[in-house]
Amino acid sequence: MRWVRYELNGKTRYGMVEGDKVMEVDGVPFGEHAKTGNQVKLSDIRILPPVIPPTFYAAGLNYMTHRRKSAARTGEEVKLPTQSDIGYRANNALIGPGEAIVIPRDSAGKIQYEGELAVIIGKKVKHVSEKDALTCVFGYSIGNDVSERIWQRGDRTFWRGKNADTFKPMGPWIETEVDLDALVTKVRLNGKEVSNFKTNDMIFGVETTISTITRYNTLYPGDMIWMGTDEPTLDMVAGDVVEVEITGLGILRNPVVAEK
Amino acid sequence: MRWVRYELNGKTRYGMVEGDKVMEVDGVPFGEHAKTGNQVKLSDIRILPPVIPPTFYAAGLNYMTHRRKSAARTGEEVKLPTQSDIGYRANNALIGPGEAIVIPRDSAGKIQYEGELAVIIGKKVKHVSEKDALTCVFGYSIGNDVSERIWQRGDRTFWRGKNADTFKPMGPWIETEVDLDALVTKVRLNGKEVSNFKTNDMIFGVETTISTITRYNTLYPGDMIWMGTDEPTLDMVAGDVVEVEITGLGILRNPVVAEK
Repeated sequence: MRWVRYELNGKTRYGMVEGDKVMEVDGVPFGEHAKTGNQVKLSDIRILPPVIPPTFYAAGLNYMTHRRKSAARTGEEVKLPTQSDIGYRANNALIGPGEAIVIPRDSAGKIQYEGELAVIIGKKVKHVSEKDALTCVFGYSIGNDVSERIWQRGDRTFWRGKNADTFKPMGPWIETEVDLDALVTKVRLNGKEVSNFKTNDMIFGVETTISTITRYNTLYPGDMIWMGTDEPTLDMVAGDVVEVEITGLGILRNPVVAEK
Repeated sequence: MRWVRYELNGKTRYGMVEGDKVMEVDGVPFGEHAKTGNQVKLSDIRILPPVIPPTFYAAGLNYMTHRRKSAARTGEEVKLPTQSDIGYRANNALIGPGEAIVIPRDSAGKIQYEGELAVIIGKKVKHVSEKDALTCVFGYSIGNDVSERIWQRGDRTFWRGKNADTFKPMGPWIETEVDLDALVTKVRLNGKEVSNFKTNDMIFGVETTISTITRYNTLYPGDMIWMGTDEPTLDMVAGDVVEVEITGLGILRNPVVAEK
């Protein structure tokens, strides 16, 4: 099943994508819902980020090459991780496919993409084992964890560096039937492939990350976890177009502009 | 005006507090709403955290004494701040007055209170000046930014250290008529006053913090910002009761228990 969140005639709602059509739904995918019987063309709607989560988690430094380069960038030692590096992102920064990533007026540049798997939670869980962790997953989508590297170095909790408005493009939809091991993440900058890695080659996989989070935090329906990225992450400038594709999950394409 | 969020007969809603009564409301305080005409006794309801924000901001290290002690604790130099230290907290951790702060099973202890002013946003703003910043504030409440100091040292973005379930008590309500300069924050541990400071003696005040955030991030109705705390922050153990009072805003009282 493929769930899309969209705006049509000023109203925001969910729908199920079937080919080039969207079956309109009342309610939310991870809660009570029913088809209304109406349908619209996929090309007629404005697609929104597929979820505005109650809590927006992000697993950082979750691929070995990225971890090494990040350490080199900040001058830290590369430490072999003993557990997931869990952090947060902010809902103000979420935008949908096609919307512009806006470079803030007083940024000195050094804006980079990070193509990531987004895990959307469907069930309330606490203290879930790795073995049972995937039972609370509703589905998967694509995120671009846009980062301003100069701010990222100085912001204690990555406030501006990762969460300025428009820095979290997400979409196009939530796919519920996914074979994690078959996924490949590809990033294209202005049409040219600049990154290509096996999505599931994480240091701490989806199961481990969910199990670790729920030792301390309850996960709720609609919460989401972004799973980190691998290298290379390259600079983007105004005028660029960045695409993150995860095979089977779709393509998330966003132009880059400078704030006026 | 005093707005309370509560549960009664399994339903969650907002109301306006008048003396010992609550006037039931349909809708949310910072959006469309109307009194239903029903009223209930304040003593009959279960008070919930007054808001579940789209984005939950926290200004760290915002009082001089706390900044010095925090630096001593982590072995860092005390740096004179040049701008607000903005971070995030997580909604999973929010609890209301009276609910238990639960020390997680695998915490080694060192759980501390931090009594804080909570600022609730009522209007969508971006690039707001310090002069106009307070026009987007809906009202104020009290937060207890409970912290596990050992985890706080190791967690890159304060994941468990500040956001384990129940670590963010908040309430009892939102007060809309507030003279910031008249406020005093008092913390009591088992009835004994352990902290007492002028709430508005911040390094970066509410106006500056809002103006700084909105250089990069849009603030939305229902977003909130916790403003930091001053020293001392002391250890709490299972069996303790912690109260944060801010004069005119009420008292936030929570017992401390150990996870079973």
